[in-house]
Amino acid sequence: MVSLKDIAKMCNVSPSTVSNVLNGKSSMSDQVKQRVLEAVRETGYQPNYYARNMRTNKSGTIGIIVEDLCQFSSPFIVEMILEYLEQKGYRPILMNLRMYHKLKNTNIEDEDTLCSILEPVIQQMDAVKVEGIIYVAAHCRMLKKVPKLVSKINNKIVYTYAYADARESKSIIIDDETGAKDVIEYIISKGHKKIGIIAGTADNFHTIARIKGCQQALFNAGLLFNPDLLLYGEWDMKSGYERAKQLLDKGITALWCMNDRMASGAYGAAREMGLEVGKDISIVGFDNHELSRSLYPQLTTLELPLYTIGYCAAQALVEELNNSDKENSDIQPMKCKGRLIVRDSVCDLTK
Amino acid sequence: MVSLKDIAKMCNVSPSTVSNVLNGKSSMSDQVKQRVLEAVRETGYQPNYYARNMRTNKSGTIGIIVEDLCQFSSPFIVEMILEYLEQKGYRPILMNLRMYHKLKNTNIEDEDTLCSILEPVIQQMDAVKVEGIIYVAAHCRMLKKVPKLVSKINNKIVYTYAYADARESKSIIIDDETGAKDVIEYIISKGHKKIGIIAGTADNFHTIARIKGCQQALFNAGLLFNPDLLLYGEWDMKSGYERAKQLLDKGITALWCMNDRMASGAYGAAREMGLEVGKDISIVGFDNHELSRSLYPQLTTLELPLYTIGYCAAQALVEELNNSDKENSDIQPMKCKGRLIVRDSVCDLTK
Repeated sequence: MVSLKDIAKMCNVSPSTVSNVLNGKSSMSDQVKQRVLEAVRETGYQPNYYARNMRTNKSGTIGIIVEDLCQFSSPFIVEMILEYLEQKGYRPILMNLRMYHKLKNTNIEDEDTLCSILEPVIQQMDAVKVEGIIYVAAHCRMLKKVPKLVSKINNKIVYTYAYADARESKSIIIDDETGAKDVIEYIISKGHKKIGIIAGTADNFHTIARIKGCQQALFNAGLLFNPDLLLYGEWDMKSGYERAKQLLDKGITALWCMNDRMASGAYGAAREMGLEVGKDISIVGFDNHELSRSLYPQLTTLELPLYTIGYCAAQALVEELNNSDKENSDIQPMKCKGRLIVRDSVCDLTK
Repeated sequence: MVSLKDIAKMCNVSPSTVSNVLNGKSSMSDQVKQRVLEAVRETGYQPNYYARNMRTNKSGTIGIIVEDLCQFSSPFIVEMILEYLEQKGYRPILMNLRMYHKLKNTNIEDEDTLCSILEPVIQQMDAVKVEGIIYVAAHCRMLKKVPKLVSKINNKIVYTYAYADARESKSIIIDDETGAKDVIEYIISKGHKKIGIIAGTADNFHTIARIKGCQQALFNAGLLFNPDLLLYGEWDMKSGYERAKQLLDKGITALWCMNDRMASGAYGAAREMGLEVGKDISIVGFDNHELSRSLYPQLTTLELPLYTIGYCAAQALVEELNNSDKENSDIQPMKCKGRLIVRDSVCDLTK
């Protein structure tokens, strides 16, 4: 069997150069890289990852644990994590907990059940000696038991889309508050004073932060916050439709829905009530989901910074791995700002 | 350090029982399972996967290679593959080639470049000794070089959403032809005779099969196929809009778009031309993408059998692994049927 040393001899380079090429490091010239890869191909050499793992205890592998890959935000966050890790020469191992599918009949905040799903995954990550983990949550919340479980295998971890109770790990989340503030400031700038709000579920972290941002914008503009104009929805089209029906009867001129799915339902309600969106009633969403461009008129919304979240998470983990001495404590979550996408669903009352 | 034998002794079971529990096999009682898992937790025992892999050459691991996780179909196919493998006690390793991202400036059919992206992934799969691979393509086509590359590591492989040139491996694809036939038969059943078609790109396998199904339905109904009423689009909203503008001028009463994104663009064209969808013009899509419910009126479309494809692929691979003697040759791709979702975008002319 061909060994690493044989390849090195054939290419007239050191064994560590061969090893670097195979691990995706980019410190050598393209010429050397090509020579080594050709020799590997010709000889059919197979690097023995297991033996290497046992020897060095460093695998060059990063675990990515996704709570739910079918959540629309997950693939985009993962995409950017993968791109970053690839550039840095790390190998990713991707695991999907399928959380929404598994917890559908129970409370999706049930961290005990989540941990029972997570535990074997963590064990597998440990078995392949990942150097660190990026945890991609499906919605924002404070994780209490997950961090304890992860800490058992003593790994560096970065959370995205959620954060840990014990603030020893970095986390990258959406800046929901600023996003909501931007949306409401925009609506106010178009002359609207009576603004209805269809929020997400009441105990959800996105909902709570977005309500605060909304109230901040109203306060800054000297507008009263009328709690009767805020209704909680369930993030889906149906609840958007139903809540919109209630709110449109209350004399509002603009309606902000905390996601695009609910905004899509609100369009249906407006239509049934004979109101033209963008003229008789202004509607704004949140997410910049693909459906927002299919609505007529196209929906003004806030684009979630999914790629930025993925990038920052991967960068944060790689930095951690290269600064292993530093003790972390009381790390604040890093918040990524979204971007307002102005389309045609808001009427300008100032004109 | 605690060994597998220690755990077995503590629990009063055989070492192979402990091993089965840790590998997710479900042949033992829940009581035994719980006892073993508790002992593992208490002692902090770490199964040595590396050593085991080298010993048995069987890893219980299945590789899932996804051409592009951000393609809307991929997460749903993967979801079902994971569910099936989990039920059968296999561990998945998920890899994303990010094909569209990497080939965006070149021809996405360029299999040489694809193979250069795939090769290190295949090597990693080999290094962790996967027992088999499920390859999830991003769009349907005949793969010529990918199967050769995969065959180097002598693994069982099942393709989904695409198929191999050399018919030695199973593949699970959409039944595009029947889907298209179902759509056109439905449109014809509502009294339409002059039907425009916005196809996908001309050289695409989905497009070719769907055109055939469409022609079959017209033939069966004794309707002429007018090639002037078929235009090729680029699967996006913009091309749907532009082609619809051209076709709506030709006196058609119904328009079939080969995906929902193009149908969404066609809605815009109809609106601009003062045509009401579902009354003045009937539009049907394909995919049952989430946006199809946000359109007004909601879009009649064909639901892709994504979960079925994932399920059948995982099942086919697991069957292969358990029938290792069988020699395969000239295997035909297995075709999964979609389901017509009737909503409000087709006008009934027979009434």
